[in-house]
Amino acid sequence: MSVTAPQGFRAAGVAAGLKSTGAPDVALVVNDGPDDAAAAVFTTNRFPAAPVLWSRQVLGGHRLKAVVLNSGGANACTGPEGFGDTHATAEHVADQLGIGAIDVAVASTGLIGVRLPMDLLLAGATAAAQALSADGGPDAARAIMTTDSVPKTTVQAGSGWTVGGMAKGAGMLAPSLATMLVVLTTDAVVPAEVLEPALRAATGASFERVDSDGCLSTNDTVIVMANGASGVTPTAEEFTAVLTAAATDLAMQLLADAEGSTKDIAITVRGAASVADALTAGRACARNNLLKTALFGNDPNWGRVLAAIGTTDAAFEADQVDVAINGVTVCRGGAIGDPRDGVDLTGRAISIDVDLRAGTEQATIWTNDLSLAYVHENSAYST
Amino acid sequence: MSVTAPQGFRAAGVAAGLKSTGAPDVALVVNDGPDDAAAAVFTTNRFPAAPVLWSRQVLGGHRLKAVVLNSGGANACTGPEGFGDTHATAEHVADQLGIGAIDVAVASTGLIGVRLPMDLLLAGATAAAQALSADGGPDAARAIMTTDSVPKTTVQAGSGWTVGGMAKGAGMLAPSLATMLVVLTTDAVVPAEVLEPALRAATGASFERVDSDGCLSTNDTVIVMANGASGVTPTAEEFTAVLTAAATDLAMQLLADAEGSTKDIAITVRGAASVADALTAGRACARNNLLKTALFGNDPNWGRVLAAIGTTDAAFEADQVDVAINGVTVCRGGAIGDPRDGVDLTGRAISIDVDLRAGTEQATIWTNDLSLAYVHENSAYST
Repeated sequence: MSVTAPQGFRAAGVAAGLKSTGAPDVALVVNDGPDDAAAAVFTTNRFPAAPVLWSRQVLGGHRLKAVVLNSGGANACTGPEGFGDTHATAEHVADQLGIGAIDVAVASTGLIGVRLPMDLLLAGATAAAQALSADGGPDAARAIMTTDSVPKTTVQAGSGWTVGGMAKGAGMLAPSLATMLVVLTTDAVVPAEVLEPALRAATGASFERVDSDGCLSTNDTVIVMANGASGVTPTAEEFTAVLTAAATDLAMQLLADAEGSTKDIAITVRGAASVADALTAGRACARNNLLKTALFGNDPNWGRVLAAIGTTDAAFEADQVDVAINGVTVCRGGAIGDPRDGVDLTGRAISIDVDLRAGTEQATIWTNDLSLAYVHENSAYST
Repeated sequence: MSVTAPQGFRAAGVAAGLKSTGAPDVALVVNDGPDDAAAAVFTTNRFPAAPVLWSRQVLGGHRLKAVVLNSGGANACTGPEGFGDTHATAEHVADQLGIGAIDVAVASTGLIGVRLPMDLLLAGATAAAQALSADGGPDAARAIMTTDSVPKTTVQAGSGWTVGGMAKGAGMLAPSLATMLVVLTTDAVVPAEVLEPALRAATGASFERVDSDGCLSTNDTVIVMANGASGVTPTAEEFTAVLTAAATDLAMQLLADAEGSTKDIAITVRGAASVADALTAGRACARNNLLKTALFGNDPNWGRVLAAIGTTDAAFEADQVDVAINGVTVCRGGAIGDPRDGVDLTGRAISIDVDLRAGTEQATIWTNDLSLAYVHENSAYST
């Protein structure tokens, strides 16, 4: 049921012709209230797309009644004209719904540096408004897909309230063309001052720890809307836990569908002096092309793990670090450990456990391998 | 003539059986004086290989009489036993040459985390010492190749003196398995206090601006030896210029031979507030897998250039940045510029020119594309 699983939300997904394939490409999610609390996190890329610039302004009020999303064009690096296109889209949707443009967030995904065909987009937005339905969540999830092979949705139950969500993305967190767009909805009663930190906690533990190809998109957007339709007010802890479960479920779906990937790799760094050190060391592995190609080749090349960690400023002594791959401690004390022949990498799931022996903190970063299909897909994307 | 082009150097390259192919794998370069000034730069990776640990100690004295190098094994992450192997190699070579172990640097390249077969290596070192010749430079250059498709050598003439050099490496600067090893020789009279800053200037303008795959090796080593055999003392400026020319020549050979690459990409960032900003922005492009795959696919995807630069803290305003690819200004003011159809990417050489319009500094970073062959070569390396 996706974003329409909680009470008081309607959604739709339609084909507006932005995609040459004729697949659905415009989605609309509407909050029918009674509350309109909202929060969002956006890309930190310094070339934010027009819809990001617009939606940041909208979300500054911590209120939101609708989100219109399109695939088939990112509307990024399109200058003042592109911003005008986003503004016109929000105005048009607001007119359809009888609300103000400032109540409407916009999110876009697709090729950078190309203007959107506004006649098609606005006609699609009209059609989406007419198609809105309390069962429309799955259609909306399909309409935001780009290189995704499957739609990504989640439903997580609280006590008398629900969190629903949809996501698109096939790179991650740091995705580029494979922008990550996420809409989360809930019928719990959650004031904005609770919603904002809950969303930061949820994304910090999920999307921000998935690093498939290290590239940061111009369009990444995560929006949550809370309408209080259930009449139930969870504690901040309860709500944060369920929202985090929803975000984590979507993040793992993004990881499993990463462009061209053949492996899901969980890199856990333990024994760190701080969580920041653990994340730094994990990310260095997740972004090391030599390690990622080795794992694609089913090669438990632990030397590349050390070489990656060796580029960071995390606290450790080189002769203290252990590395286990799929349970085999192939490196002990920064040197040769158990035989690498014992490591079975034939499955999709790979775990790399690094013990820095420098403290008591730990963190996990998820990534994918660097495959022939990744290169093929990303070299052929815009041609 | 490689490292034996200057007077007073002998070299050799022999097959010791470290490589299963039977190709040459042990090289020796000897300085016959009269001077023995030397300088070096080493990897900053925090898991330095045993030969790096040893050679750092040796070069601490700014004097050197010989370098023994092997391919077929990196002797990295091999613990105290691996350090003992390096020490024993230096001792053995010193005995052969009638000098002290502290006069002998060691460099190794190959797979990380595997002990070297010392019986083969020491026998090879003996053979290399017996084969030393004033014509041995080319043999030495061949013996340090790993995934290199061609040996890399250079000869640069000063006024009455010469700089020679050899290199191996096929990733860079930041290479991992494709460790970069470089030996430079000169018969100029160059005291250590001139040699050290000259080498730093030469590497800073050459190897450190080549960033093929963003990975930093455990074994990278650049050594220069000056024996004064010509009797000519150049000024520091003259010597630095010729040494830089030699280093740049070798760096461009490394770039052209990068593993699986189909493009040589020069990313020039101008209009920067500082050289550091220009380098940061250029490196962000050089390490962006989505951009590198696009270029492999002959796709002038300037949006990926902006998305990469947008992740940095370089000074710029998003609506001021221009990007030209092979001479066509495809992005102007952070938005759509001239038609991308006008960009011809079919050749091997690609230039990306970014104007940040934030200052007067500039710098160029060289990199390669991310190709199917890169993934294939690096996934199959150790299997």
